[in-house]
Amino acid sequence: MAIKISVIGGGPGGYVAAIRAAQLGAEVTLIEKNNLGGTCLNVGCIPTKALLHSAEVLEEAKNAGEYGIDLTVKGFDWNKVQAKKAAIVNQLVSGVAGLMKINKIKVVKGTAKIESAASVSVSSANGVQKVVGDKIIIASGSTPASAPIPGLKDNPNCIDSTGALSLDKVPQTLLVIGGGVIGIELATAYGIFGAKVVIIEALPKLLPMMDSELTNALIASLQKRGIQIIAQAKVVSIENSANGVKVNIEKDGKKEAFEAQKVLAAIGRRTDTETLGLDGAGIKHDRGRIIVDDNMQTNIKGIYAIGDCLGKVMLAHTASAQGEVAAENALGHNAKYDGKTSPSCVYTIPEFAGVGLTEDDAKAQKIDYIVGKFPLSANGKSLIANGGVGIVKVLLGKEYKEVLGVHILGPRATDIIGEAALAIGMEAAVEDIIETIHAHPTITEAVREGFLAAEKRAIHSVNK
Amino acid sequence: MAIKISVIGGGPGGYVAAIRAAQLGAEVTLIEKNNLGGTCLNVGCIPTKALLHSAEVLEEAKNAGEYGIDLTVKGFDWNKVQAKKAAIVNQLVSGVAGLMKINKIKVVKGTAKIESAASVSVSSANGVQKVVGDKIIIASGSTPASAPIPGLKDNPNCIDSTGALSLDKVPQTLLVIGGGVIGIELATAYGIFGAKVVIIEALPKLLPMMDSELTNALIASLQKRGIQIIAQAKVVSIENSANGVKVNIEKDGKKEAFEAQKVLAAIGRRTDTETLGLDGAGIKHDRGRIIVDDNMQTNIKGIYAIGDCLGKVMLAHTASAQGEVAAENALGHNAKYDGKTSPSCVYTIPEFAGVGLTEDDAKAQKIDYIVGKFPLSANGKSLIANGGVGIVKVLLGKEYKEVLGVHILGPRATDIIGEAALAIGMEAAVEDIIETIHAHPTITEAVREGFLAAEKRAIHSVNK
Repeated sequence: MAIKISVIGGGPGGYVAAIRAAQLGAEVTLIEKNNLGGTCLNVGCIPTKALLHSAEVLEEAKNAGEYGIDLTVKGFDWNKVQAKKAAIVNQLVSGVAGLMKINKIKVVKGTAKIESAASVSVSSANGVQKVVGDKIIIASGSTPASAPIPGLKDNPNCIDSTGALSLDKVPQTLLVIGGGVIGIELATAYGIFGAKVVIIEALPKLLPMMDSELTNALIASLQKRGIQIIAQAKVVSIENSANGVKVNIEKDGKKEAFEAQKVLAAIGRRTDTETLGLDGAGIKHDRGRIIVDDNMQTNIKGIYAIGDCLGKVMLAHTASAQGEVAAENALGHNAKYDGKTSPSCVYTIPEFAGVGLTEDDAKAQKIDYIVGKFPLSANGKSLIANGGVGIVKVLLGKEYKEVLGVHILGPRATDIIGEAALAIGMEAAVEDIIETIHAHPTITEAVREGFLAAEKRAIHSVNK
Repeated sequence: MAIKISVIGGGPGGYVAAIRAAQLGAEVTLIEKNNLGGTCLNVGCIPTKALLHSAEVLEEAKNAGEYGIDLTVKGFDWNKVQAKKAAIVNQLVSGVAGLMKINKIKVVKGTAKIESAASVSVSSANGVQKVVGDKIIIASGSTPASAPIPGLKDNPNCIDSTGALSLDKVPQTLLVIGGGVIGIELATAYGIFGAKVVIIEALPKLLPMMDSELTNALIASLQKRGIQIIAQAKVVSIENSANGVKVNIEKDGKKEAFEAQKVLAAIGRRTDTETLGLDGAGIKHDRGRIIVDDNMQTNIKGIYAIGDCLGKVMLAHTASAQGEVAAENALGHNAKYDGKTSPSCVYTIPEFAGVGLTEDDAKAQKIDYIVGKFPLSANGKSLIANGGVGIVKVLLGKEYKEVLGVHILGPRATDIIGEAALAIGMEAAVEDIIETIHAHPTITEAVREGFLAAEKRAIHSVNK
């Protein structure tokens, strides 16, 4: 008899777990209250990248003259931009539906409540049904967190990331609360589409999980595009105004006010676990963040949890990787999740990606390290692609020269980080990267040069 | 006393060897008869990629409407396209000059003739001078080969790759003889700039070093753009005609004629070693192709040779890698060149890259292998970038599942291949790639899926 697995949530954690479980012979039911694909496909990574791609096309068109291309940019048709985004989302969502069919996974629509490892009740407009099985994988995801700022809640001009992806027009002015990945990506897109953008961040550092030095370089490039960035500032209150809202902030003890048509609150995400009945089922959690071991199992045998609902690293690829681990363990394997190869990507122009330790991490963990840096202004392909804006930075352990971290700001960084992730996964040392031939002319050559620089033997730059 | 090294040729083989030797404490003289940077920077990879980038910007502008961007493409200003190309070339060439200064490498202009490991005579308009030293690294490169086709030689309408990079206007019709990398890249660029392009290839297969199946997919995509490709055809003769030339070909015993404004002969390259005095110096060669061992040393102790002048793999990154090896050995180290991680890249749209064995190689070498394939139509980022055109194909050894080869047709393929090269360098097996988390949404996810597919456990496609 096949083991029956119930998966709660059809995002990149849940649907991947469901497919992996089906591959391993399970009979799988996937419970989803909204659309298959979850946040990522419907209101997260994919629509954001689709908007950003349109923005990039616009940006490139504006710069086309530099490359000898003769064109007149009239602007953009926002409805078409949105339609393209929707078409991509729909294609991928129906792709997931197709994958469910191919893998014979039963999809049940509704809100899940866990009764035991053997039973989930699912409520929908059609009533309540029970999904019985042997084990459960919870992948219920997250929703945008709301900020306790007076005047923000229920204000139609104050939106979250979901709202920002489906605005009916580009606002003239956009104030973004929060300088994390979501805030910065949407600021980039709307900035290119013509909005005057201000980012307000409470902490001293934007993009907390990214390397500080490269973050500063990215900030400089965002500022060059006209995006105003104010860190260590607090949004005190929001009031309605003639043209939208007035946002009152406080920085260094001084008050300041900004007029904006729209305010995007991108202050983070919170786990979406309220309706799961965690307490009733006896599943341990920390204020809604489900607690699991390395096998992705909760304190209840046979109940696993993965992805955003753990309230830790809220990234689609983390959820997918954890989903595969959970599915394998549910089917009797012994897999462990290890996030050390998990890259962090920011889809700005240029792109920004990192994997492994940042310099701040290394310092905090008191690890002896050496740094290698290589500017993309000395890389031929980068010069062609974007005039050479960007930098590669690598961290090696001081004694054994093992790869601790790689950080890339530059064209294609989110894909180039793949090599670095493998290097960390395989416990590569500096010579492994140096001895690998990197094709010319590519941007990846700069990765090798970064490692050469750590050894004070970069070819195309000065070794200090 | 510092060891004195004379490097003949200032391309990506020679100048890199010179820098590496200087890093290791040598006193280096670099002899160059033309421009620093060699073929690659002046009349090869870099100007080709600059032209291709302008073509790509034009292509993207033509498709901008699909992404909601409203613009009118008037065309292009060929002089500006050429000026942009020249600016990039000049920047990189003067960058190399700067690197020579920083590394205290003396640059001597002229044509080198080797007298012994200790002496090179250099002729220039200023007369003949002797460069004395301890060891020599030959990096004299290659030039376009000429085809023995009646009517081709000295015909102003028949050009080689150097000529094709500096045409004063885009020809209405371009016939390309040779379906190798150079022919296909220039065909791609001129096709986008509006030339009607025909490629004639003598052999059954275009791009001989690339995977056959993916080459066929690329050919289909070139044909879709209107490029006509005729394989297994012989160019018999070329005659002048009213509008340029008439090219007479023969295929399957039938004669056919094509009218073209320009003919690009891209039938390969030959070593540029005639003026080196190889025989006088007693350096072994095979019809001008210098013979070396794994240390890049010729039969004469202290004389090394690298790159195109060996007449084997004529790629810039191969030359650079060999240059580092030769310099290290000249300075008393014991380095060996191993080309197994050397990628092959074709800068088409989409890009095409491979590393390791192709399926044809594996068959020829009677290696038991398994294949994994993943279509980019099932990869979200590819869908956004180019509608999902492309494919990842991986080859694993059947018994140990070691990575034998990775082949990618798709956006950013030339950079994504970096991960695969490292995998081969580190002797990765399938689990190493699978256990590495690949960021979402990226095109590199498709690489992992290719490996999953080889194990019949791809997540986002059907496992047959």
